[in-house]
Amino acid sequence: MSVPESDTSGWLCIVGLGPGSADLVTPEVSAALECATDVVGYIPYVARIAPREGLTLHASDNRVEMDRARAALAMAALGRKVVVVSSGDPGVFAMAAAVFEALEGQPAWQALDIRVLPGITAMLAAAAKAGAPLGHDFCAINLSDNLKPASVIEARVRAAAGADFAMAFYNPRSASRPDTFGRILDVLREVCEPERLIIFARAVSTPEEQIRTVALIDATPEMADMRTVVIVGNAATRRVGRFVYTPRSVLPASL
Amino acid sequence: MSVPESDTSGWLCIVGLGPGSADLVTPEVSAALECATDVVGYIPYVARIAPREGLTLHASDNRVEMDRARAALAMAALGRKVVVVSSGDPGVFAMAAAVFEALEGQPAWQALDIRVLPGITAMLAAAAKAGAPLGHDFCAINLSDNLKPASVIEARVRAAAGADFAMAFYNPRSASRPDTFGRILDVLREVCEPERLIIFARAVSTPEEQIRTVALIDATPEMADMRTVVIVGNAATRRVGRFVYTPRSVLPASL
Repeated sequence: MSVPESDTSGWLCIVGLGPGSADLVTPEVSAALECATDVVGYIPYVARIAPREGLTLHASDNRVEMDRARAALAMAALGRKVVVVSSGDPGVFAMAAAVFEALEGQPAWQALDIRVLPGITAMLAAAAKAGAPLGHDFCAINLSDNLKPASVIEARVRAAAGADFAMAFYNPRSASRPDTFGRILDVLREVCEPERLIIFARAVSTPEEQIRTVALIDATPEMADMRTVVIVGNAATRRVGRFVYTPRSVLPASL
Repeated sequence: MSVPESDTSGWLCIVGLGPGSADLVTPEVSAALECATDVVGYIPYVARIAPREGLTLHASDNRVEMDRARAALAMAALGRKVVVVSSGDPGVFAMAAAVFEALEGQPAWQALDIRVLPGITAMLAAAAKAGAPLGHDFCAINLSDNLKPASVIEARVRAAAGADFAMAFYNPRSASRPDTFGRILDVLREVCEPERLIIFARAVSTPEEQIRTVALIDATPEMADMRTVVIVGNAATRRVGRFVYTPRSVLPASL
């Protein structure tokens, strides 16, 4: 068990709830939630936690990650048993890095009992539903330009496509930046063949789940939103029956 | 529930057992194992499944992935309820791609009830133990040259380091290819600064777990073996207290 065992002092667990289904929450994370006095996170993720006696839910809006991290650390320092929840895995474009940023220059907080409990990240849940499109070397890229310039994003997509990595894009598109993903599709069209397979996986493992695979030439920005993870195959990614997979070998499959 | 519900016909689930601890096996995977009549996989992974009445365990050696995939499909076609087990996630350098390769040219097998159930992959379990070293864009690269030329591996590491991705290396080193990882360290030393942080995470979530973080200049090939996943930070990856994390922003954290 990775859940802290002390009953007398506070702790902080930064956990991943997986993509949506309760069947994808690890027993380790469920155990941490059962012991917690406080759950902290973005509104839709905290909404996934069942209320119970003795548990306080602290839901906050998007884009206040640092405030949320500091509030969670302050509660743990007061002896509370605090769980910070993220969707997917907490270490993949989620709350873990924000909590560690909040530890900078704070030796008292650094001495706290802090653990990260992994979860099923969106790209792997999406890949499983489609088949095995990430079965060979791959990259995970956050397309949000909140925290990095668009030029860096484009350079990374170009480098990854040039070296024939498969790719998973998180946060491909939002109302505040409707054009980013269209530019990324343009970059892919410069580097990849028109038949390259792209998977749009929306709300994986929830009742709203939609999985759609198209050729690059047929992909449009509107196929993605903030609940979508986009998987781009490598040059060898192919369909077999109703599945999409990337062969384990670099050479074309000779079966 | 993603476990097939039919009692009268066979099915195949390709599942991830996570890195080792039973606390990291998803409820979805546990449910599939409870319904199975047959479990198929590499010897040490099948050894993690508790024997029970009505369950046949089929353990096989490494490097026979295609034979194993075909045997599992043949059993499902005969009406058996078959679980193919991988460590970690089945779609990341594991059995899912092998099963889909085995479907090529086999329409009867393609019509079977086949599902992939995701798991906690080694790099995310390792990252969680260290802090959040994969908190920004990252790549996953299999260093085994069984199925691709060493030149492709080196080119991908060079491209990923050049675009400042963090990286996770699977299968970094084995008795049959003791020198690959040393060459990869040389490539990293050409592209990255000597202080670049590298995490060697061995047997994560098992009693033999070891997590060690060193600067690139101090890294040696002997620090890795086949039970190790290696995580290389990006240029901004840093220590805070006993943790290692990669800031969410491309610019240096100004805290």
